[in-house]
Amino acid sequence: MTIPTKYPIMAIGGAEDKVGKLEILTAFFKSAGGQQATIGIVPCASQEPSVVGARYYRIFTELGARSVQILNIRSPQEGDESRWIERLDTCTGVFLSGGDQVRLFDFIHNSTFMMAIMQRLHLGSLVLAGTSAGAAVMGEKMISGGSSGESPNRSLVDLMDGLGIIPELLVDQHFHNRNRMARLLSAIAAHPDKLGIGIDEDTCAAFRGDGTFEVVGKGAVTVIDPRALTHTNYPLSDGISPLSLHDLQVHILSAGDRYDYKRRSIHTPSVEMASPV
Amino acid sequence: MTIPTKYPIMAIGGAEDKVGKLEILTAFFKSAGGQQATIGIVPCASQEPSVVGARYYRIFTELGARSVQILNIRSPQEGDESRWIERLDTCTGVFLSGGDQVRLFDFIHNSTFMMAIMQRLHLGSLVLAGTSAGAAVMGEKMISGGSSGESPNRSLVDLMDGLGIIPELLVDQHFHNRNRMARLLSAIAAHPDKLGIGIDEDTCAAFRGDGTFEVVGKGAVTVIDPRALTHTNYPLSDGISPLSLHDLQVHILSAGDRYDYKRRSIHTPSVEMASPV
Repeated sequence: MTIPTKYPIMAIGGAEDKVGKLEILTAFFKSAGGQQATIGIVPCASQEPSVVGARYYRIFTELGARSVQILNIRSPQEGDESRWIERLDTCTGVFLSGGDQVRLFDFIHNSTFMMAIMQRLHLGSLVLAGTSAGAAVMGEKMISGGSSGESPNRSLVDLMDGLGIIPELLVDQHFHNRNRMARLLSAIAAHPDKLGIGIDEDTCAAFRGDGTFEVVGKGAVTVIDPRALTHTNYPLSDGISPLSLHDLQVHILSAGDRYDYKRRSIHTPSVEMASPV
Repeated sequence: MTIPTKYPIMAIGGAEDKVGKLEILTAFFKSAGGQQATIGIVPCASQEPSVVGARYYRIFTELGARSVQILNIRSPQEGDESRWIERLDTCTGVFLSGGDQVRLFDFIHNSTFMMAIMQRLHLGSLVLAGTSAGAAVMGEKMISGGSSGESPNRSLVDLMDGLGIIPELLVDQHFHNRNRMARLLSAIAAHPDKLGIGIDEDTCAAFRGDGTFEVVGKGAVTVIDPRALTHTNYPLSDGISPLSLHDLQVHILSAGDRYDYKRRSIHTPSVEMASPV
């Protein structure tokens, strides 16, 4: 079954509204099929998966999903257990909660569960959303930790492999909220083949499945494009000396803006989008 | 008298080292003539001008300046008093302390004192340095206040006129340290004819008087160039809605990097710089 979904992948910058208009969670709910949706919550990034799982369970149930499941994978081994695969098979949407992205990665990377998610995404029969840690894991490389309040430098960011759901992206979250420009810049200096995406809280990079994403929610998505980078001192820098990055292209995108991350350019509305509904 | 100075204007991002190698303060001291320097400290941005003045007095005296004066202008009226102009006439370097840039602006803008500084800068017979608030006032427009931790938006930044020492710049300081990327972006959205310069703590944009500056000190200088801006929603945005800024050019510059703010490009070392000394 291919579901006609608006946003097959949603990367949320954390702290999405859960008590007001629920704009982002509603967009996910609708993308997953609305009242026909079966939603699987993966709370395993959190140290309190029961609490987190229960909270999203209540939200998606109240929004009117046909069914909501908590896929509480509790160890790397469980990621291969058939009970989780069977439940995943019934889902039209999977929601990765916040918490620790390393924990999330450890529990599901290379698992049968993860392979099944990738297959379903490929077939266009699943919507995948991740918030905070759940967004951090989207790229082939991920920011596993770091600090803030310093000039960009190597030691400001810890990097490791991510789940590779959208391989070309390097995602950071709680972006302007937690002063993470310098850490994303430091990450891009390490991986200038990637595209940096900094997502603010209660804000979502909503991917349309055609190489573009649009911005949904309250804040901004910051794009750091190093494609035209002319110089970085990264290869020569030690841990704490400040980094140079010359000739970056940066976009600040807000609600309704759309970006083509395959072509690395702002997506201009086409004729059919501009016509009246 | 024209003094052969390396850096006629120095914009320091605040919190410059005062107890270690004093790299930035020494560069200012040397630019102002070293042991031949007469340095005037303008502490009037501070609410505690005596304390601040005394601290810099001690530093520049210990560095070996021939003379150090504290130009403690205490009101807008005092900026026209001949005693300060007379003392200024003897100075080869003037140092604007940190504090509140609005207070500094109020005390000296349109004053005889400020006109004398501009004239001396024009003649090439004075070095002017400003740290924190003293750097903020450099542009024709200045950031007078604001907040952080939000997506770029109109209400994140307060803007007013600056002293116009380098009119085309819009300067922010304590930059990555205090999470000010979003506020400088918001300021640039309001004034896209300006060039945004975000200076980190213990870091200096040291202007050479030829339309270029180089970076001195511990951190980075972030350049936000909106010259190729293709879109901003600023004119239509209300106070708190997130801003869009498409197609910014951004440079992260660190020690030794040099930028041509007239041509808006990285300054490439010329032959005479590359040759052995």
